[in-house]
Amino acid sequence: MVDTGPTALRLDARQDGFQHAFARLLGQKRETSVDVDEGVRAILADVATRGDAAVIQLTAKFDRLDISGGRMRVGADEIAAAKAACKPEELAALAVARDRIEAYHSRQKPQDDSFTDALGVTMGWRWTAIDAVGLYVPGGTASYPSSVLMNAVPARVAGVPRIVMVAPTPDDAMNPLVLAAADLAGVDEIYRIGGAQAIGALAYGTATIAPVAKIVGPGNAWVAAAKRRVFGTVGIDMIAGPSEVLVIADEHANPDWIAADLLAQAEHDAAAQCILITDSPSLADAVEAAVQRQLATLPRARIAAASWRDNGAIILVGDLAEAVPLANAIAAEHLEIETANAAELAAQVRNAGAIFLGSHTPEAIGDYVGGPNHVLPTARSARFSSGLGVLDFMKRTSILSCSPEALRQLGPSAISLASSEGLGGHARSVAIRLNL
Amino acid sequence: MVDTGPTALRLDARQDGFQHAFARLLGQKRETSVDVDEGVRAILADVATRGDAAVIQLTAKFDRLDISGGRMRVGADEIAAAKAACKPEELAALAVARDRIEAYHSRQKPQDDSFTDALGVTMGWRWTAIDAVGLYVPGGTASYPSSVLMNAVPARVAGVPRIVMVAPTPDDAMNPLVLAAADLAGVDEIYRIGGAQAIGALAYGTATIAPVAKIVGPGNAWVAAAKRRVFGTVGIDMIAGPSEVLVIADEHANPDWIAADLLAQAEHDAAAQCILITDSPSLADAVEAAVQRQLATLPRARIAAASWRDNGAIILVGDLAEAVPLANAIAAEHLEIETANAAELAAQVRNAGAIFLGSHTPEAIGDYVGGPNHVLPTARSARFSSGLGVLDFMKRTSILSCSPEALRQLGPSAISLASSEGLGGHARSVAIRLNL
Repeated sequence: MVDTGPTALRLDARQDGFQHAFARLLGQKRETSVDVDEGVRAILADVATRGDAAVIQLTAKFDRLDISGGRMRVGADEIAAAKAACKPEELAALAVARDRIEAYHSRQKPQDDSFTDALGVTMGWRWTAIDAVGLYVPGGTASYPSSVLMNAVPARVAGVPRIVMVAPTPDDAMNPLVLAAADLAGVDEIYRIGGAQAIGALAYGTATIAPVAKIVGPGNAWVAAAKRRVFGTVGIDMIAGPSEVLVIADEHANPDWIAADLLAQAEHDAAAQCILITDSPSLADAVEAAVQRQLATLPRARIAAASWRDNGAIILVGDLAEAVPLANAIAAEHLEIETANAAELAAQVRNAGAIFLGSHTPEAIGDYVGGPNHVLPTARSARFSSGLGVLDFMKRTSILSCSPEALRQLGPSAISLASSEGLGGHARSVAIRLNL
Repeated sequence: MVDTGPTALRLDARQDGFQHAFARLLGQKRETSVDVDEGVRAILADVATRGDAAVIQLTAKFDRLDISGGRMRVGADEIAAAKAACKPEELAALAVARDRIEAYHSRQKPQDDSFTDALGVTMGWRWTAIDAVGLYVPGGTASYPSSVLMNAVPARVAGVPRIVMVAPTPDDAMNPLVLAAADLAGVDEIYRIGGAQAIGALAYGTATIAPVAKIVGPGNAWVAAAKRRVFGTVGIDMIAGPSEVLVIADEHANPDWIAADLLAQAEHDAAAQCILITDSPSLADAVEAAVQRQLATLPRARIAAASWRDNGAIILVGDLAEAVPLANAIAAEHLEIETANAAELAAQVRNAGAIFLGSHTPEAIGDYVGGPNHVLPTARSARFSSGLGVLDFMKRTSILSCSPEALRQLGPSAISLASSEGLGGHARSVAIRLNL
């Protein structure tokens, strides 16, 4: 019997003490951090020193898998066999997702720029794809084919010439749909390794795996700690925290639909956070009742119930306009707006990873086949960061070129500032060209 | 007597063992890391707990400065007095720089997007400025007004409504040109605090300083460690390492000019790295001789000589085309190309923070008045990251909206993938809307 009794926190923005209670909700620590840093340090040092030998030994130890003798890389035959093992409708759904993600992200390709100003200075920038990108895919139940697409497709759209996937296969168990997704997304190399040893192999390179310049993708505490440690040697993406959804709804919203959306987020992780803001007390009650009702038949009810009980909240506001500052403070990974004036409200929200507008846009559509990326900033980081996109797989080189006359015009200002900063060599490098 | 004798490393790409020597040059560790992490942890915890009281006490301790009684913030009168104390030509040069940086960065403002596809799915994204940004400015000799402009102007162009500057003023010494630059750039608040305590105040907020959402700007080991630690609570920019320049030049280049450019970089820091790649043995010799000659009259000769001796290199190639893969591997912060076919060579370089084209574009022009940003990726990170720009002060929210018909079309694919991933709640949130 799943303990579905306890309901979510209920707050009322019109009551005394709301600001304090809201601040406590925002500050609530949902992640339990495991300190694996020392173990990770040792593994990375081992991989940096011994390369393949270390990776093979650590894979035998952690994944109970022998990948010696050239079995580290997943072969084309295995990929073909995996695709053959998938149901046709699953492959078709993956292809729909791939095509839609590609169409959306293709619009994100940035423009180069070059212009010459009145002084004769030619300036601009050029975007280039990162040379090689590593994509980490977790093993076990967190091995999501949709995440393979969401990470690899934007890299491919960016023009990354070499996309390398690593995925642990404990006891030799690999999700065939993950291999199919990698193949569909255009991943170039796949290795059956995981953990900190896989991050080390991607960052430092081994005899088998050439190093990459950036590593993306979700992982457990070991993977996250390893990514933090190799940052600098390679680039990394954000470190993802537990998932979140904020739903803003009015009295016309369907409580069953909203409950389903809240539980879709809650089923990810007991640390996930689901919040409803509404101006309708009756909707608030109806959603809570629907959550309890739906939990009874949800396969992952135990997880979802824990999330809803420990981290869920229903916030009642006097007017939906009050929802905007609350939404900006929460800065949710996912924001659903199911109100009469949804677009208008959305326009006022500054901090959100992704917005889902209207009653017919459940967040789960965005997880799979909407088109936008599902890798989004968590833990209020939408205040300062964006979801994954094409720009994350490119870098911009600025370009500057002065004509002799332009240098004559600009030189004195540069010399003045360099001298003020006590950098005589800087001043000289300009002056020497102007015979000053 | 400055020890200018020892010359830079000399490599020849056509000789045996070059790849090994080049790899060693690339892997050379130039930074000496000081472990201040435990001290930083304690300071941040103190600021998080005690707020202003901690900041005031730590400032008294480290900067020998009493900022109690409302003296933490720099007043408008002080800013006006500082501007009055600057030379008119310095202020004019700052204004030139500000205007040019603003003109260049204004072109980086990203476009929002919204489109509706054939299924009736409306998608797009919206860029918004970060609500509040903190700018760290080091004290003492590393207090550069040009860096204030390079950090604050793009934030202003992005539309950041609140820009907060912190700068330590040990013994109450503040560079008036730094205050003038902050004022010119449109900084909203200035506080005379520094070190890890200033980073803590910006990240957590105190009674005097409201918290920001992102912190940018260079700093010493304490500041860098504090930024790493508060990352997540706020966004941070890249952690800058010692500066670098790579010059690619042919026989027609002026050795005195190139020597001046190499030394302009070398004078920053003994850990700075200056490399020349050329196909001309006579240019190589002439540049080395000019470096030695110019060192004799360089104010910061001791620093520059150490950099050139310990980290400098001249690499001879048989053909300039060979310079391209070397430049891509070096991934220099600054790349000057002074060859007959400069633009052609530049087009082949994928990894560089900034490129300076032609003989009349010394890198120092870009440090001050070119227009592009001088905050650039160091330590080979141009392989995966870009210089500072307007995008660093904005974030992108994706937007998705399905019509009922669009959901009917897309729903089954989402349900299929969600079911494959074992996420029944996700599947239900779609199915419930389709009466499936």
